Amino acid sequence: MVNVAFQGERGAFSEIASMKYFGDGVSVSPSFSFEDVFIKVKNGSVDFGIIPIENSLYGSVFETYDLLLQYSLTIVGELNLQINHCLLANQNYKLEDIKKIYSHPQALGQCSIFLKTLKNAELVPAYDTAGSALISLQDKGVPSAAVASREAAEIYNLKILKSQIQNNRENYTRFLIISKKKIQDEFQNPKTSICFELKNIPGALFKSLSVFALRDINLVKIESRPIPHKPFEYMFYADLTGSLEEERVKNAINHLSEISLSIKKFGTYEAGKTYKS
Amino acid sequence: MVNVAFQGERGAFSEIASMKYFGDGVSVSPSFSFEDVFIKVKNGSVDFGIIPIENSLYGSVFETYDLLLQYSLTIVGELNLQINHCLLANQNYKLEDIKKIYSHPQALGQCSIFLKTLKNAELVPAYDTAGSALISLQDKGVPSAAVASREAAEIYNLKILKSQIQNNRENYTRFLIISKKKIQDEFQNPKTSICFELKNIPGALFKSLSVFALRDINLVKIESRPIPHKPFEYMFYADLTGSLEEERVKNAINHLSEISLSIKKFGTYEAGKTYKS
Repeated sequence: MVNVAFQGERGAFSEIASMKYFGDGVSVSPSFSFEDVFIKVKNGSVDFGIIPIENSLYGSVFETYDLLLQYSLTIVGELNLQINHCLLANQNYKLEDIKKIYSHPQALGQCSIFLKTLKNAELVPAYDTAGSALISLQDKGVPSAAVASREAAEIYNLKILKSQIQNNRENYTRFLIISKKKIQDEFQNPKTSICFELKNIPGALFKSLSVFALRDINLVKIESRPIPHKPFEYMFYADLTGSLEEERVKNAINHLSEISLSIKKFGTYEAGKTYKS
Repeated sequence: MVNVAFQGERGAFSEIASMKYFGDGVSVSPSFSFEDVFIKVKNGSVDFGIIPIENSLYGSVFETYDLLLQYSLTIVGELNLQINHCLLANQNYKLEDIKKIYSHPQALGQCSIFLKTLKNAELVPAYDTAGSALISLQDKGVPSAAVASREAAEIYNLKILKSQIQNNRENYTRFLIISKKKIQDEFQNPKTSICFELKNIPGALFKSLSVFALRDINLVKIESRPIPHKPFEYMFYADLTGSLEEERVKNAINHLSEISLSIKKFGTYEAGKTYKS
């Protein structure tokens, strides 16, 4: 059975993503932090890790980028998950009873329009969405609710007071599947992720993009990240169409090395499908 | 007297940034959210707003980028503030007494190495650093502390149990000063901020950078942000050296408009100095 580590409590959106990607038979390993997921994959205690890299409303998950660089793991897949936030509470509460609503600050923000209509409820930040479901389960007499997934309601036997409470339904999270080694050689729609640190020369970013543009390689995404100990200097993370086995991609990366201090290849994987949560 | 709105409680790093930029005589207006800062500037109830745009370890503050686009305000200045996180508590507590430590999750993360050494203390997420100082002030008998600024200790009469507790001393936040209209025409080191949405054509990002590279205009920073309702399409925010009054910058932006669906100019301002907090 495939074993997959994700960050969060049971019912986290990362767990849902695991089940969509690997099927219901997957064995999941809930983990405290993103870094714990990387550690479990690195030391072989799980086969894969699944980690959010980007949300269509909020942008990139910086910590994931930093961990990709820090741990030498391979990206072997990706998927997009449409996020459906629900308001969950103990079975005996009605919407108007609720006095406290727990969730990750980003989830509270994503549902701000609906949550503002609940005048009596205080919003309380928590570490994650599924964890907030656990908190609302143990509400100690103060009628509490959580913003979390439909699956969290099932796992913790909570009632869904309201589904689809997010401000914007076009809310997708992109997840990466990470592994110790590559698992596939043939792709229908290959994508490749790399990162590089540019030499401090004029127009360096422009030149780095030209190595791809000159070879008709499509850059799907580029993201800059600060370099620790070098304030306001950046690493660039790029996703491109094509495989590391292709001649033109190899040539582009050779060309890039002429203007880079370092290049890291995270791997080639099949471009991801989109699922609903 | 100059009146400046910032997000957070008294003692927030944004307030410190206001005093560094405008001097101690400034009158400050604490605000609940970043958006409230923009609203106060827009409706004229303050002269300026000050907002964080980027941290040297954690990257860009996405919400600020989105609000810059949403409200038509002008960027009139910037500064960098070195962040010094302190552990604050009521005067009668010692370090080993502390049972709960409150702060913004990012501040807790920035001090994780030191905080791990306090085995008896539980880390509790809060909305902001200065607000967590307020919480620890009212600790109701549970020995509590907060990760916040040196100034927050002074304002709330708390004791600094330990200073400089951040993992990495090279921790800087860049702040922008926003106003309803431009206030300056002459610059020694002008910087200009713009954003643009590219047409969906091959190599569009490469072409957009070329309009600057071909005119020897240095791109200091480029950041992509998701476009709401267009999943995985992006707006690009760019900082460049030079003024909107310069011919070559005007030409570059005209050239950029040929490949963009829209361009917004946020203003020209003097490149910022760096201060210690």
